[in-house]
Amino acid sequence: MADVRESALIDSSIAVVGAYGLVGREALSILHARGVPAQRVRALGSSRSAGTTIPFGPGSLTIEELRAGSLGGCDVALFCSDAQTAKAHAPAAIREGVRIVDNSSAFRLDDGTPLVVPEINSHLLDEGPMLVANPNCSTIIMLMAVEPLRRVFGVRSVIASTYQAVSGAGRAALEELFNQTRAVLDGHAPEPSAFPVPCAFNVFPHESAVDPSTGLNVEESKVIAESRKILDMPDLEILPTCVRVPVERCHSQSITIELGSPATLGALAEIYGAFPGVAYNGDPTALMTPRDIAGTDLVSISRPRLARDGRRISIWVCGDQLRKGAALNAVQVAERLVRRDVA
Amino acid sequence: MADVRESALIDSSIAVVGAYGLVGREALSILHARGVPAQRVRALGSSRSAGTTIPFGPGSLTIEELRAGSLGGCDVALFCSDAQTAKAHAPAAIREGVRIVDNSSAFRLDDGTPLVVPEINSHLLDEGPMLVANPNCSTIIMLMAVEPLRRVFGVRSVIASTYQAVSGAGRAALEELFNQTRAVLDGHAPEPSAFPVPCAFNVFPHESAVDPSTGLNVEESKVIAESRKILDMPDLEILPTCVRVPVERCHSQSITIELGSPATLGALAEIYGAFPGVAYNGDPTALMTPRDIAGTDLVSISRPRLARDGRRISIWVCGDQLRKGAALNAVQVAERLVRRDVA
Repeated sequence: MADVRESALIDSSIAVVGAYGLVGREALSILHARGVPAQRVRALGSSRSAGTTIPFGPGSLTIEELRAGSLGGCDVALFCSDAQTAKAHAPAAIREGVRIVDNSSAFRLDDGTPLVVPEINSHLLDEGPMLVANPNCSTIIMLMAVEPLRRVFGVRSVIASTYQAVSGAGRAALEELFNQTRAVLDGHAPEPSAFPVPCAFNVFPHESAVDPSTGLNVEESKVIAESRKILDMPDLEILPTCVRVPVERCHSQSITIELGSPATLGALAEIYGAFPGVAYNGDPTALMTPRDIAGTDLVSISRPRLARDGRRISIWVCGDQLRKGAALNAVQVAERLVRRDVA
Repeated sequence: MADVRESALIDSSIAVVGAYGLVGREALSILHARGVPAQRVRALGSSRSAGTTIPFGPGSLTIEELRAGSLGGCDVALFCSDAQTAKAHAPAAIREGVRIVDNSSAFRLDDGTPLVVPEINSHLLDEGPMLVANPNCSTIIMLMAVEPLRRVFGVRSVIASTYQAVSGAGRAALEELFNQTRAVLDGHAPEPSAFPVPCAFNVFPHESAVDPSTGLNVEESKVIAESRKILDMPDLEILPTCVRVPVERCHSQSITIELGSPATLGALAEIYGAFPGVAYNGDPTALMTPRDIAGTDLVSISRPRLARDGRRISIWVCGDQLRKGAALNAVQVAERLVRRDVA
């Protein structure tokens, strides 16, 4: 898919909302790498970040404050900020003819809003929706590993334990990881602020709010509901356990999939090899790590192991949550939307 | 169980083999805390560590070199070293009447050797075996969480993803974690030595050798084979994924258990409350972490979540792998062996 995209956005006017954040910066970096010129890109943000200069390739962009009407004239806006910002600004922008790809959770589960991972359900873009929701990072990374197997064997349930990087919680969390780690190495007690518990030399259940009736935190609930919507399998059993680990960037997942029919390990190279956006490593001794995969576009799938009856498969998955888990997926969606307009 | 133990070993002559290592030191610390006087304890190790002074309570012990005949006159020897040392020295010591509790993998799967977690299968100690094997740390921690549910609901399969602390790989690995973390914070590239890949700000599949025919690493194979032996369920399906995380001490596990009959969350407090050696936290918002549990004796079980049919339960488990996962379990076994002699 990557080969046909460079041209798609070059002639578009693109806004990146939330440009100061980690996902916004990543989106700008991807747009530049794909040949979009600086004069076609606008960076927007809150009044707090407005006026700040941020990198765009060798040059820079100055962040404009996002206000009512700010997005007029843009072809596409990539919303890389929170649900509140999306709800406040996306509807008016759409009325002005701006197509929106929203990274927040604001619209993901709305009935009329396509929730898209292009490699999985890009047909939802065929009708040229004005608003497309980008799934949660853990959802995208998990489904990129599950979908190729689902197409061949069917899927009955998915059990996923995550090892989620701290940068998924934003800039302040990442600074906390480094500052707190230095403090602990210097013999001081860790003082949590961005997270509810220490993150240095520690792992902990995802910090999002817990629903007492199910015991699931919001991250886990997102993975379940979004996966069911994307796969169009409203009853699929998904049992996620979302855990934060002291890794800078790139989420990992230990996934066990209950298949509809038995698999063989020998079939996996061909199945994953035929699926865009993933890199399959069938060498059982390979130790793929988030450090290796951080900053790359493909979701890494390795360590396949089969249960005796071949109906359950365990895999180890690493995917950069700022790229395929967020900004890259959004840019891919935007490219498809614009390409459709051009075609 | 804890209340009856203090007296059991006080009048015994105890040897700790591998006293210089992390598990050996932990064993000494536990023996001291349980009231065993220094004059009853001998610390032994390799020629390299012989002569070194190590702490024992407020005082210290000097490590003697382990040689043929070194253990004569001891009632119990806790072997806290590698399989090679155990194979070289345990058989002769047994012939001299020394009871052995071995922490290594040397004898665990031998047909005649009891593999014991006292809370689960202490009946194997009833006949006063001369040699008892201590299970792998991940096995012990997983089974302490599984066994209470198995007794009530039955267990059909166990899927476990681990978050294993670096100290499980020994002193050099722990030093590597701290040195490498400092290097990365100072802008240097990580240089792995104790581990095959960087451990600072990274997670990675367990470093033990991989069997190419199954894709399982040795740690995972141990968990499977040892659990089947301890539970006396030779066909139990166990699908482990063992992962190392940059945590100093205390293993965590995300476990999903397929039960024989449906469970309710309401039953768990009573079930786990009646089982020794575990601490159940039924508050769904509790964030239990390895930092909280490190240095403590109980295996922490929290975040219970049920699948819709009640037949699969997911839990979050933290257990100090140097204590219940190794030294504490060994001391518990030794206490039972000696208590039996006394009784």
